[in-house]
Amino acid sequence: MAAYQAGSPVVLVPTMGALHDGHGALVEAARVRAGTAGTVVVSLFVNPAQFGPGEDFDAYPRAFADDCSRCEAAGADVVFHPSAAEMYPAGRPGVLVVEQSLAQTLCGPTRPGHFDGVCTVVAKLFHLVRPDISLFGKKDYQQLAILRHMVTELNFPIEIVGAETVREPDGLAMSSRNRYLTPEEREQAPWVRKVLLGIRDHPSRQAAARLASAREQLAAGAPLGRIDYLQIVDRNSMAELDEIDRPALAAAAVFFGKARLIDNIEIG
Amino acid sequence: MAAYQAGSPVVLVPTMGALHDGHGALVEAARVRAGTAGTVVVSLFVNPAQFGPGEDFDAYPRAFADDCSRCEAAGADVVFHPSAAEMYPAGRPGVLVVEQSLAQTLCGPTRPGHFDGVCTVVAKLFHLVRPDISLFGKKDYQQLAILRHMVTELNFPIEIVGAETVREPDGLAMSSRNRYLTPEEREQAPWVRKVLLGIRDHPSRQAAARLASAREQLAAGAPLGRIDYLQIVDRNSMAELDEIDRPALAAAAVFFGKARLIDNIEIG
Repeated sequence: MAAYQAGSPVVLVPTMGALHDGHGALVEAARVRAGTAGTVVVSLFVNPAQFGPGEDFDAYPRAFADDCSRCEAAGADVVFHPSAAEMYPAGRPGVLVVEQSLAQTLCGPTRPGHFDGVCTVVAKLFHLVRPDISLFGKKDYQQLAILRHMVTELNFPIEIVGAETVREPDGLAMSSRNRYLTPEEREQAPWVRKVLLGIRDHPSRQAAARLASAREQLAAGAPLGRIDYLQIVDRNSMAELDEIDRPALAAAAVFFGKARLIDNIEIG
Repeated sequence: MAAYQAGSPVVLVPTMGALHDGHGALVEAARVRAGTAGTVVVSLFVNPAQFGPGEDFDAYPRAFADDCSRCEAAGADVVFHPSAAEMYPAGRPGVLVVEQSLAQTLCGPTRPGHFDGVCTVVAKLFHLVRPDISLFGKKDYQQLAILRHMVTELNFPIEIVGAETVREPDGLAMSSRNRYLTPEEREQAPWVRKVLLGIRDHPSRQAAARLASAREQLAAGAPLGRIDYLQIVDRNSMAELDEIDRPALAAAAVFFGKARLIDNIEIG
């Protein structure tokens, strides 16, 4: 890391590896931000601290060689691939970074401790890599909002940039977890995107009406899907909305077999 | 902060102001570490987030003009004196840094949330000032241990240096809170140091025996003192010890009227 070019930006793309075209777009955007003199760092680390008991930490796909090729093709300069023992010598984090407000809805209640693990590992990566800019995908919209909040509250000298979700031709958001899907589940999974579009374009101001209609459609179109949550929240505070009278976000987490898929859409 | 000399160390001394000779020694040590080309920054900030309800946040002494003179005399280059509104625009921290192990004993249980507030504000100061080195006094021994742990766990690129406690001629540890003492309390307060010396030099290996003897002496010598805690802990883990069979720390917090005084001594 001592070889950074003085005065040129260091841009970090934190990932858990198993890279797909969504990550590729993040790395390409990082390359643009860094310019030719800057440094693009991609971290590959499946962070145990953000997985709960019974979640898919062990099953989470690892694909180091392929990840390195993708990073190089997308314009990365450095791949940072620490081991769990390097990141957590005591086996688990002894100091946590805890976001106190935006983590209360959506994935917060259904994945207790998840965002503490995310904030903690990203704080560590920020100190290790010392980027000027860091990029995150909007598929993990709540994560992006929480990390922005962390950076503001703790005064990290880092700019956080969000990048649009990259989708398959049928609308399914790209995710490393899509490879868990059986062919039948894969066929039904794009309904998550379809019902989110439906929520966005629904004429009612009432969140409950839009959500009820979406639940019906999802049950009909994707009988293999089991909703973890389907919510409409204030886009800034992540607080649940009854009336859609401000910039909002509709977000869903839906299980298809072992795969828990998330997606979201901005409203207004 | 843009005027730091490239390649020369930036050394930070975080304080709550109301500086005394103990702080002076810290700033002088910082000057030595920084050298002539480096930068010594002293922060003055009475951090509301580390005071609990009913504690002395409002009463805590403020002495900005005198603090500036002391900083200059001791060799500081920069005084950083943010307002509470600058540090906590939302009124209170929205993201906390939480140390999970060393904060369980001594001041931890009697000041719930205190060390979360300390870790959070120090993380903020580290990001704002970006020091290479930061100095803390050993009077707040547990705080020093917790901040070392925070720096290691979160990979802050910062060296933490502890400095010896500076004492009045009669042994009382210097503290901004000593000015709360009535003349009678001031006369009895050095007994805290005396009983800590007694604990260190006591022949028994059993912590209970040493502590019982110390409690007796304190009651006799300083009847105005009310013990908040008096403990012997493992110097690394801060866990309470029954037998003194490893590097230990004896630490006390004693109320004299409104003033809660702390002190400690290394054993072994």
